[in-house]
Amino acid sequence: MTDLTLAAANTIIMAALAKGADARMKPLTVAVLDAGGHLKAFQKQDGASMLRYEIASGKAYGALAVGMGSRWLDQTAKERPHFMEGLNAVSGGRIVPVPGGVLIRDQTGKLIGAVGITGDTSDNDELAAIAGIEAAGLRHQAA
Amino acid sequence: MTDLTLAAANTIIMAALAKGADARMKPLTVAVLDAGGHLKAFQKQDGASMLRYEIASGKAYGALAVGMGSRWLDQTAKERPHFMEGLNAVSGGRIVPVPGGVLIRDQTGKLIGAVGITGDTSDNDELAAIAGIEAAGLRHQAA
Amino acid sequence: MTDLTLAAANTIIMAALAKGADARMKPLTVAVLDAGGHLKAFQKQDGASMLRYEIASGKAYGALAVGMGSRWLDQTAKERPHFMEGLNAVSGGRIVPVPGGVLIRDQTGKLIGAVGITGDTSDNDELAAIAGIEAAGLRHQAA
Amino acid sequence: MTDLTLAAANTIIMAALAKGADARMKPLTVAVLDAGGHLKAFQKQDGASMLRYEIASGKAYGALAVGMGSRWLDQTAKERPHFMEGLNAVSGGRIVPVPGGVLIRDQTGKLIGAVGITGDTSDNDELAAIAGIEAAGLRHQAA
Repeated sequence: MTDLTLAAANTIIMAALAKGADARMKPLTVAVLDAGGHLKAFQKQDGASMLRYEIASGKAYGALAVGMGSRWLDQTAKERPHFMEGLNAVSGGRIVPVPGGVLIRDQTGKLIGAVGITGDTSDNDELAAIAGIEAAGLRHQAA
Repeated sequence: MTDLTLAAANTIIMAALAKGADARMKPLTVAVLDAGGHLKAFQKQDGASMLRYEIASGKAYGALAVGMGSRWLDQTAKERPHFMEGLNAVSGGRIVPVPGGVLIRDQTGKLIGAVGITGDTSDNDELAAIAGIEAAGLRHQAA
Repeated sequence: MTDLTLAAANTIIMAALAKGADARMKPLTVAVLDAGGHLKAFQKQDGASMLRYEIASGKAYGALAVGMGSRWLDQTAKERPHFMEGLNAVSGGRIVPVPGGVLIRDQTGKLIGAVGITGDTSDNDELAAIAGIEAAGLRHQAA
Repeated sequence: MTDLTLAAANTIIMAALAKGADARMKPLTVAVLDAGGHLKAFQKQDGASMLRYEIASGKAYGALAVGMGSRWLDQTAKERPHFMEGLNAVSGGRIVPVPGGVLIRDQTGKLIGAVGITGDTSDNDELAAIAGIEAAGLRHQAA
């Protein structure tokens, strides 16, 4: 596979939402971005709050920005806050540096996109993202 | 119904994409926004170009901005370009004033969101949007 | 009087809405800005569409920007569109150059603010603004 | 009630200002936003400083963004500053994460908007917001 298909993106979302339902998570919002950082598919469950698209895509965008899962951004923000502030500034303010943004790689390891999830704890958001990527037969990178 | 549900939004997208396939349209991108202009669901077909999220949501956002389908914006842009430029400016540059942004109303006529489609001709984009809204048992307003 | 009081701003809004009701106008949105372009009071009637705050304040802000009612901006946009585009650009995209933005002057002629109205035709919006300013015992300048 | 009415928004503002007067608070600024984050009604008392619209609406917008009162944002900003910075970034710089932004729910618990108040201490701003919401017969959520 060389590109993220819509079919794969939809599979990721549906499996992530199923994971959230199984684990009794709060309403989730799931954004899937392609390798260029452009939105491919998105769903926001009923009851999710207003700015959840921006938060979900902000996790995925941040992961793509540096080629690491957003858990790495979270750690970096604690250790070097000025780097994260600069990264966010040059991104045009598009990054939310907390866990829940997970890179999507194909079976050869090629980066093909990222998924960002928000709604429950950041750790649970990340678990749902990983479940989604696995369901699509792809590889995940959370940190 | 008082709010746009995720189930309805997904139905709109699937029916719009089916309409596009039936009519042999080019790859479509479909954004569904709630009444407050926030993204509820989104899908971009394989082969669609880079900025299609921004275009699709820009049609829907523009429709919600003035409470008219984006076909009205298209006509207004021709008659009063300075109004449309001003509207786009105060929106923060979020409006694409061409057909394909269609308001979604419930059966009582209450505004509950908007769908924006891009990929084929603006007229065809609008037809796909209407087909999607009808499939969800909701009312459409294209102008 | 040297400054626009909240009492005067509220009187302007209530009288403008009363004018709209008398003339059977569509739902109106009324923004009153002080001489520094900062919001003093605001009301948006039920049924008004999403971006009406931005439009109403954009008319009033544009009027204050050049010290003329927004009817002057409308005329200027037709005659010298590049000037209006430049003005909007340097304002940070805060101007809607159509009638309905009216300067507020005290009885000595001193500029103390502006009111912007949107919802009906631009001409009617302007009539409601003038009615509001007159009800507060102040002077208006629409062009 | 399914939507925030102008009548309810005006009641909230008048009662909040009355609370401020009773408690001898400094001049207050009150912004009421609908559930989509769009301004419904606003008043700024005489003597309030220049950027009070932005502060008041920034508290209310932040509350709506995450579906929690802005007191929660204040606590989160202390515990996870990089999350709050990221949230503010993806909001386009529209959030002021301190107490005084309170969610408005109807009697069924449905979220219908938020009120943001600034001018006195953040704790007092919040008290005035709660008093306003109670006067309108609605439910409040401050954290």
